[in-house]
Amino acid sequence: MAHDGQTLPAASPLLAGLLDLTAQALPEVEALLHRGRETLRTWVSVSGKVSAGAMETHQHAAHVLSWLATYTEALRQMQAWALRLQADGKFGETEALILQIAYAEYLNQIHGGIPMSQGEIARLQDLDLSPAPCGAAAQTLMAQGNTAAARAQLVALMRDGRANATFGATGLDEELEMIRDQFRRFAAEQVAPFAHEWHLKDELIPMSVIDQLAEMGVFGLTIPEAFGGFGLSKASMVVVSEELSRGYIGVGSLGTRSEIAAELILCGGTPEQKAQWLPKLASGEILPTAVFTEPNTGSDLGALRTRARRDGDDWVISGNKTWITHAARTHVMTVLARSVEGTSDYRGLSMFLAEKTPGTDETPFVDLGLSGGEIEVLGYRGMKEYTVNFDDFRVKGENLLGGVEGQGFKQLMQTFESARIQTAARAIGVAQNALDVAMGYAEDRKQFGKALIEFPRVAGKLAMMAVEIMVTRQLTYFSAWQKDHDKRCDLEAGMAKLLGARVAWAAADNALQIHGGNGFALEYQISRILCDARILNIFEGAAEIQAQVIARRLLD
Amino acid sequence: MAHDGQTLPAASPLLAGLLDLTAQALPEVEALLHRGRETLRTWVSVSGKVSAGAMETHQHAAHVLSWLATYTEALRQMQAWALRLQADGKFGETEALILQIAYAEYLNQIHGGIPMSQGEIARLQDLDLSPAPCGAAAQTLMAQGNTAAARAQLVALMRDGRANATFGATGLDEELEMIRDQFRRFAAEQVAPFAHEWHLKDELIPMSVIDQLAEMGVFGLTIPEAFGGFGLSKASMVVVSEELSRGYIGVGSLGTRSEIAAELILCGGTPEQKAQWLPKLASGEILPTAVFTEPNTGSDLGALRTRARRDGDDWVISGNKTWITHAARTHVMTVLARSVEGTSDYRGLSMFLAEKTPGTDETPFVDLGLSGGEIEVLGYRGMKEYTVNFDDFRVKGENLLGGVEGQGFKQLMQTFESARIQTAARAIGVAQNALDVAMGYAEDRKQFGKALIEFPRVAGKLAMMAVEIMVTRQLTYFSAWQKDHDKRCDLEAGMAKLLGARVAWAAADNALQIHGGNGFALEYQISRILCDARILNIFEGAAEIQAQVIARRLLD
Ligand SMILES: Cc1cc2nc3c(=O)[nH]c(=O)nc-3n(C[C@H](O)[C@H](O)[C@H](O)COP(=O)(O)OP(=O)(O)OC[C@H]3O[C@@H](n4cnc5c(N)ncnc54)[C@H](O)[C@@H]3O)c2cc1C
Ligand SMILES: Cc1cc2nc3c(=O)[nH]c(=O)nc-3n(C[C@H](O)[C@H](O)[C@H](O)COP(=O)(O)OP(=O)(O)OC[C@H]3O[C@@H](n4cnc5c(N)ncnc54)[C@H](O)[C@@H]3O)c2cc1C
Ligand SMILES: CC(C)(COP(=O)(O)OP(=O)(O)OC[C@H]1O[C@@H](n2cnc3c(N)ncnc32)[C@H](O)[C@@H]1OP(=O)(O)O)[C@@H](O)C(=O)NCCC(=O)NCCS
Ligand SMILES: CC(C)(COP(=O)(O)OP(=O)(O)OC[C@H]1O[C@@H](n2cnc3c(N)ncnc32)[C@H](O)[C@@H]1OP(=O)(O)O)[C@@H](O)C(=O)NCCC(=O)NCCS
Repeated sequence: MAHDGQTLPAASPLLAGLLDLTAQALPEVEALLHRGRETLRTWVSVSGKVSAGAMETHQHAAHVLSWLATYTEALRQMQAWALRLQADGKFGETEALILQIAYAEYLNQIHGGIPMSQGEIARLQDLDLSPAPCGAAAQTLMAQGNTAAARAQLVALMRDGRANATFGATGLDEELEMIRDQFRRFAAEQVAPFAHEWHLKDELIPMSVIDQLAEMGVFGLTIPEAFGGFGLSKASMVVVSEELSRGYIGVGSLGTRSEIAAELILCGGTPEQKAQWLPKLASGEILPTAVFTEPNTGSDLGALRTRARRDGDDWVISGNKTWITHAARTHVMTVLARSVEGTSDYRGLSMFLAEKTPGTDETPFVDLGLSGGEIEVLGYRGMKEYTVNFDDFRVKGENLLGGVEGQGFKQLMQTFESARIQTAARAIGVAQNALDVAMGYAEDRKQFGKALIEFPRVAGKLAMMAVEIMVTRQLTYFSAWQKDHDKRCDLEAGMAKLLGARVAWAAADNALQIHGGNGFALEYQISRILCDARILNIFEGAAEIQAQVIARRLLD
Repeated sequence: MAHDGQTLPAASPLLAGLLDLTAQALPEVEALLHRGRETLRTWVSVSGKVSAGAMETHQHAAHVLSWLATYTEALRQMQAWALRLQADGKFGETEALILQIAYAEYLNQIHGGIPMSQGEIARLQDLDLSPAPCGAAAQTLMAQGNTAAARAQLVALMRDGRANATFGATGLDEELEMIRDQFRRFAAEQVAPFAHEWHLKDELIPMSVIDQLAEMGVFGLTIPEAFGGFGLSKASMVVVSEELSRGYIGVGSLGTRSEIAAELILCGGTPEQKAQWLPKLASGEILPTAVFTEPNTGSDLGALRTRARRDGDDWVISGNKTWITHAARTHVMTVLARSVEGTSDYRGLSMFLAEKTPGTDETPFVDLGLSGGEIEVLGYRGMKEYTVNFDDFRVKGENLLGGVEGQGFKQLMQTFESARIQTAARAIGVAQNALDVAMGYAEDRKQFGKALIEFPRVAGKLAMMAVEIMVTRQLTYFSAWQKDHDKRCDLEAGMAKLLGARVAWAAADNALQIHGGNGFALEYQISRILCDARILNIFEGAAEIQAQVIARRLLD
């Protein structure tokens, strides 16, 4: 153990002058990114403009750039985090090891290949970047930063620090850490002990949990006080989502739809719509649902076909939607539909705040013109997903968002910034949950006469989880900070979501592996966490779509 | 499409002189492996002998060596395959692209990092191998071998060749390919259409399927004719297992237990035991089950605690076993138990052929002294897993394998060669199944106005699946060939199993991703294939144990 000097390796695995090394290594990566971007730009530009066709031809290269940019931003934020902690006197051994391993691993991956998925590796050469000779600092980090000794020492410190909320200081302020503690306690007491049973029985999360969350202000966290919310920062939403998802992704996702609806209305609603909806969204009195996807239209949302036509003062909606989360209990559906006749792309889409009578598990849909059914799924079960069919379903004329047609797609794309930040936070929570249970199991389970955690391949997995969780955290906090400071952050939010989804999936996968055969038993939580984690790469923009969005923004 | 010259890229992505390039690149990798092995040997040797303690300290490095050796053997076998095909005039464009992409990708990974799991990357530097400067051939392959154009061209050829049993010629002889066709047809007609329902309902595979397999000779494939089998090669077992697992892993695994039991008896049984059991195993009249694992003892099998004590002529067994596949229906259990008093390691273990009355789904255990229950699992469901408790359960004295005590562990370890070859074949089948359904989906599903398969990120996934499936095939066929030629092949079998499990998992993961949201719906087969694929890294030696076994053998 770390506190026992006797059993520490003779020399500390921490590199001397670490923060100087990382500071020196960073600009090289930034330069690489810059060169890669300019190369891609020349490949995909036609008469000085980015061509969609050329982007598609060079899709692999474009996504390599997205991942390279994501890693670069991640390293930049890790350095910023370390410097802030150091200034505050909080940069301890745990934090230093996390920084060192993160830099070593990500630099090595940048030069040796970044796994975009299992089986698809992004390489510098895909952007015609000849393996740039690295400076001495980067070389030191790459060669000596992520060693078995460094990982072992980090795990020793993690074992000592298991009571802490996070492995390593997050760098967030005290108010946010108090919020974390509050929700961590709530999740540990009211969520985690029951989540697995809800999952196994495919039950809706009990209303009592939702009521408690409403009382704690979860649904109005970031809604301005003028509209009955707390007016807190996006960062607070991130921390809350993290800790609730650490208890159960389903509970951590209850706020997602409220976040989407509130953002839609805040950014695009009329004053009357704001006054009417926001206070009730904030209080949790109204649970919204997000109705965008159709059976034939997922990633290519702009092409959707559900129609909305005027009928007197009202709108009448017809068409089939699918994959609608929490559709049964909802009071209002944010429905994206085509209202402009003769259009087939995003320009004809409008957003509606369509009122719905809340249904139950048994009778999800009771309104005239509305029907649908449950879609059974691998994981992410507590709210359930539904097909929703609109058959001349009536929506009041006043419920067209902003009172304007043809703006629905852009209104939605803007809200995706917040939604993706929130999804990145959910990914962190899921990954942390995986780490928590894997670490517990590795401490308890003995083989070959010792606890599993004593074996380097087991400890190594745990160390990498802790490191990548911190990296995703910093990237996510950064995008939340941007959002809070009214900066456009679809780029950063996209990066956080892209990386977070991979990190959570890897964490769940490795945590299951640590459980051996028991990981495969439905009885063990990790079997659920694996299934839950798999969704993160699919919804809110599949990994490939996310990479595409990032690449386009990089070339803007 | 490939046959339409107009739409082919101007220059073929195939490298000139490919077989010379690969021939030149191979020895460099072999030299690297040699250096790595000698480095590890110095690290883990204590007074000239490999020390278990030092191996554990250097576990990460040891496993890096195992993966490096696995890749080296894979590349060697790919080259041998290509040369054989070329000699037979069968080395076409598809095969050339597969070879080229495989070499390019694996050389790049060897130099840039081999993913042992998501999150654990094996690097040359972990063995103190300074990035060796590669020769011109390797450099060409690495830079130009696995390009977007090469992957696109391979997928174009795959689309043209969808009617073929495999993407690319396997290099097996005609008799084996006829066996493949027979079982492929059987699996397509009798297995694949029903598998998903068996899984969803958690049902046992119907006895009628088992009866048909028995008629087709599946259970006696490799048992000598003298004992009622077909006396065919292990390669035939591989092909049969591949194609059955391509229909459903559960069906492809029905033969595993027969293979283990038959091998145990063939290698370790007395003449009477051979005469008594082998013909009935061959005919499928007897379905065996493998009873080794205990709640507290999985990887460290040598430490197991279930006791067998003499009582008159009989043996009496007491203890708890778990994770026993197909335990309900079985007629005979190969039980590993501790019979030598005062021992605590593998030397006290003996193998018993314990007769059991076949039970049913409702009443799995009816014999005196035998009880247990089903373990609900994520995937790999069609035979079910059980806890099995022995409470003074009687076994006839004549049913001690070979009539010798204390040999059970070694007897078992020897049979693991065959079992792991068979498991590698199952992995190939699962990966192929994932590729089949993903390719079908990518052809049918349209987004942004085209079939998904037209997008580079989708096509790239399919190409890498086809390539890695062929690599695993060649490694597996090689280990089967070694076994057929009476060479010790625990090393090669271990490599095939290690790689196969990762390849199947990656294929299932990427195939699910191609399905987008639908991949997450229980209704779609890929949701099951993902769950099924996850077992391969856990049983028959978890990935970490497999790597450990390989490393030890490399240092022998
Ligand atoms: C559990 C769950 C909950 C959901 N909840 C909601 C909800 O509440 N409301 C809602 O509206 N939707 C919801 N969705 C839908 C979700 O947003 C979509 O599944 C997602 O947008 C992907 O769309 P798709 O499933 O149609 O996949 P597709 O668009 O068909 O994509 C399939 C695959 O092809 C890839 N692909 C697509 N186009 C390209 C391209 N141009 N280049 C390269 N690759 C490409 C994708 O990345 C993906 O891997 C949910 C989905 C799930 C599974
Ligand atoms: C679906 C299913 C079917 C099965 N069928 C059968 C069957 O029919 N008969 C039977 O006897 N068994 C069966 N098994 C059991 C299977 O063989 C074991 O699960 C497997 O051997 C792993 O053992 P364990 O589960 O105890 O994991 P553990 O041994 O506890 O290992 C847990 C984790 O720790 C790692 N680990 C362990 N030791 C070390 C070390 N020294 N260094 C580094 N890492 C280490 C492992 O690799 C693994 O990742 C089955 C299991 C499953 C899930
Ligand atoms: C793929 C995808 C990124 C859009 O691709 P597209 O159809 O090619 O659309 P474009 O990127 O051309 O954008 C269309 C318009 O919206 C605008 N837009 C896009 N993102 C925007 C943003 N974040 N903020 C403001 N405007 C935005 C574009 O500028 C463009 O407007 P313009 O023509 O006036 O310049 C989008 O469909 C998407 O995110 N799909 C995933 C769906 C999803 O996440 N579903 C989750 C449901 S829970
Ligand atoms: C971990 C594991 C490889 C053995 O490790 P171990 O306990 O350290 O055992 P050793 O490797 O020291 O082997 C013990 C003895 O068996 C012998 N042995 C091991 N593998 C052998 C093989 N393939 N052929 C012949 N003998 C073998 C060894 O030589 C040694 O004998 P020795 O002491 O006379 O030299 C083994 O327990 C294992 O495979 N575990 C995984 C379990 C599994 O796959 N379960 C699946 C159930 S379906």
